[in-house]
Amino acid sequence: MNPQIVRFDYNNVMADVVGQHGLTEAEIEAALPHAAAAIEAVQGHRADLGWPELPYQNTSEIIELAQEVRARADTLVVLGIGGSALGPIATQTALQHPFYNQLPSELRRGPCLYVPDNADPELNAALLDVIDLERTVFNVITKSGTTAETMAAFLYFREALAKRVGEKGLAEHLVLTTDPRKGALRQIAERGGFKTLPIPANVGGRFSELTAVGLFPAAVTGIDINELLAGAAYADKRTQERDPRKNPAAMNALIQFLLDQKGKNMVVMMPYASRLRDVADWFRQLWAESLGKRINRAGDVVNVGPTPIKALGVTDQHSQVQLYAEGPFDKVFNFLFVDQFMLEAPLTNPYSDINETTYLDGKSFEQLIKAEGAATQLALTEAGRPNVAHHFPAVNAYTLGQYYYMLEMQTAIAGELYNINAFDQPGVEAGKVATYALMGREGYDERRQEIEAARGRHNDDYVI
Amino acid sequence: MNPQIVRFDYNNVMADVVGQHGLTEAEIEAALPHAAAAIEAVQGHRADLGWPELPYQNTSEIIELAQEVRARADTLVVLGIGGSALGPIATQTALQHPFYNQLPSELRRGPCLYVPDNADPELNAALLDVIDLERTVFNVITKSGTTAETMAAFLYFREALAKRVGEKGLAEHLVLTTDPRKGALRQIAERGGFKTLPIPANVGGRFSELTAVGLFPAAVTGIDINELLAGAAYADKRTQERDPRKNPAAMNALIQFLLDQKGKNMVVMMPYASRLRDVADWFRQLWAESLGKRINRAGDVVNVGPTPIKALGVTDQHSQVQLYAEGPFDKVFNFLFVDQFMLEAPLTNPYSDINETTYLDGKSFEQLIKAEGAATQLALTEAGRPNVAHHFPAVNAYTLGQYYYMLEMQTAIAGELYNINAFDQPGVEAGKVATYALMGREGYDERRQEIEAARGRHNDDYVI
Repeated sequence: MNPQIVRFDYNNVMADVVGQHGLTEAEIEAALPHAAAAIEAVQGHRADLGWPELPYQNTSEIIELAQEVRARADTLVVLGIGGSALGPIATQTALQHPFYNQLPSELRRGPCLYVPDNADPELNAALLDVIDLERTVFNVITKSGTTAETMAAFLYFREALAKRVGEKGLAEHLVLTTDPRKGALRQIAERGGFKTLPIPANVGGRFSELTAVGLFPAAVTGIDINELLAGAAYADKRTQERDPRKNPAAMNALIQFLLDQKGKNMVVMMPYASRLRDVADWFRQLWAESLGKRINRAGDVVNVGPTPIKALGVTDQHSQVQLYAEGPFDKVFNFLFVDQFMLEAPLTNPYSDINETTYLDGKSFEQLIKAEGAATQLALTEAGRPNVAHHFPAVNAYTLGQYYYMLEMQTAIAGELYNINAFDQPGVEAGKVATYALMGREGYDERRQEIEAARGRHNDDYVI
Repeated sequence: MNPQIVRFDYNNVMADVVGQHGLTEAEIEAALPHAAAAIEAVQGHRADLGWPELPYQNTSEIIELAQEVRARADTLVVLGIGGSALGPIATQTALQHPFYNQLPSELRRGPCLYVPDNADPELNAALLDVIDLERTVFNVITKSGTTAETMAAFLYFREALAKRVGEKGLAEHLVLTTDPRKGALRQIAERGGFKTLPIPANVGGRFSELTAVGLFPAAVTGIDINELLAGAAYADKRTQERDPRKNPAAMNALIQFLLDQKGKNMVVMMPYASRLRDVADWFRQLWAESLGKRINRAGDVVNVGPTPIKALGVTDQHSQVQLYAEGPFDKVFNFLFVDQFMLEAPLTNPYSDINETTYLDGKSFEQLIKAEGAATQLALTEAGRPNVAHHFPAVNAYTLGQYYYMLEMQTAIAGELYNINAFDQPGVEAGKVATYALMGREGYDERRQEIEAARGRHNDDYVI
């Protein structure tokens, strides 16, 4: 058995283990043809989708540029939001030192990494207090080349840079990751002679982690991106399996789908490892934006979509587990467990004569976090809460790449099960239009007047 | 009008604004006596509850000890989890520089602050790479004095400290915050002559932010804790109001309760300010652990509890808003808006001839984040999603203290509406027992054997 496989275990969704809120063998068996058809549909569109082929890309352009940046920069700042930030953050948290930016430079493997992924004035201004612009490279990431928050951040830091290094110096401090042909950022790159990296035209933001979006920042901080891709390629092999019973992506898509049909409208991803914390955040976008849809492919109004929730073991035992164990039966849990941490962190107890702490003597943090994960899984199972587990033999580039790819495939297959388009996001359009109207963008005057009229109808009795 | 009031606006839950998924005036009117009784019940138990009186405590002991630590430490490490970590983190994020720990020491107002709130071996070990033990003080926080993760962390760092500064030097590096009389940590403090701060015996973890738990770390980093308490005192005045229509805590408790009854089993707290990000995490514990209950006060099995979800504006527009706008009608939104940021962060656009970016020229990040918040609120309202807004005139110690207290009161009142005990957490017991069993604690052998037997029934066919 390949010890590097991220294993998927669904024992605890079975009704004979977890009780009436689980699934019976008969329910699963009846749904397997649906899952098999979903696998077939996704595999049949690999070329159009683009992202399924990403494990096989040539990374030499990314690695070369990353080497160049590593050589001359102390800091890399990623300016991106949504799919252009969540992946880079998740990979960094998973594979680098937990206090990476605070490490003395001789203990880091590369430049500091900051991803200020919000249009917050204080956050962006504050970043200027802790970086040395002359030794900083900005990686501006937007597929469309027009994302408001990212373009605003680009303008903001461009201005600061120009003041410090001059217009002529800018090119040394910018790498723009965007559509290979279209968009404002592409035009800007051409005008300024700035370096660029492409995002394949058919790959949407939330499926872009294994493009230059995620790979370039990772390579700059010294992560082996070919290992990430090798893991993804291995997951590709596993998830091409046409028998759903042998395909973890299909099996988990089916389980989440069936349990949603049974009223579990939330899926909690709960890693028992601080390193995997932000993978849960990356998954939140992937799952929510792909499956949360008003209209199905037949054009019917369906308003579907399970809500992904990020929780962290053991931390959230002290916050959410009371609700998870005793609240409504409205959730399915996805635990992420790690078989082997990089170190144990042993404990010695000079107070072992004090009864409540005796059991900790001679144990380790690794034993404790693993015991707590197993205990919580058991307690939720006994409380009748269906749950699955993803077992990482260890957290490294190979297993992380596997897991990213597996979740992407799981999401695409779930889209088939829900019979919706998992690759669009029509629901964010109204907010964008309203933002343009409120920002005074040309052509949006009518909308602005409507908004102001709506504000006029505001009832002050409902304000306390 | 006092410009420092955090205002609560519920226009967008009204059915005539948001449509059929909102509440009618008649529904609210009918429920007001229930809310009034809930206010009365909570106010009638102020002394037993303890936390309602915290705004009026004497802070001199905390401030004196904090001054002493500020004078001799470069770093404060808080060892705590759940209520002993979420509050200190939320306050720090809200009121200090966004990259506080990375600031050069002359720009910080006090020591660095780390809160490694997980029993993760790598996280805890890594902290030793970035702190200087000789200049570090550890604030160990556990109400019971027995919390496994916190005691493990204490033992781990105590060992490292003893190696560096010797057994005799330990007292200079430890402040233990715990029950004034009971528990292992109290015994340990007495044995070692370590400094302690008390958590009032009747105040539970999730209501302890305004005790030494939250106040001491805040005072060490230079936050004006008397301002926090002054804000809380003001919120106390506002939430003692017996007419629910004039009491923001009661009105929001009622709205969340009524919408939960109508199938909105999730409450999304979405601050439009990076500073308020972790307040949403603090609220997650408060709301979930207080209201997620199996049994009501009559002893009936009810399995109630809305699920609190943390989202961040604008960041999560690019992750969750597709689902929020188009998915099932299963959520109510609590927006947090800030009227005035500490700075604007203006934008200048040398590419204003490129059409898609023209509108950003001469604008600011502050305008953008405010426009996006208003636009998202509008889009969700128009999509029929009920939502309320909490308007912060600015984020400072006074408004933050107000908001903490208001949410605590809202939670207590909601407990009355659900007719459950909002102050216990029986559902975490099973997990604790299983942890002890798996850690080999004396007296838990039988449970360990049961767990091992259950593992023996594991079906390998359900592992892929």
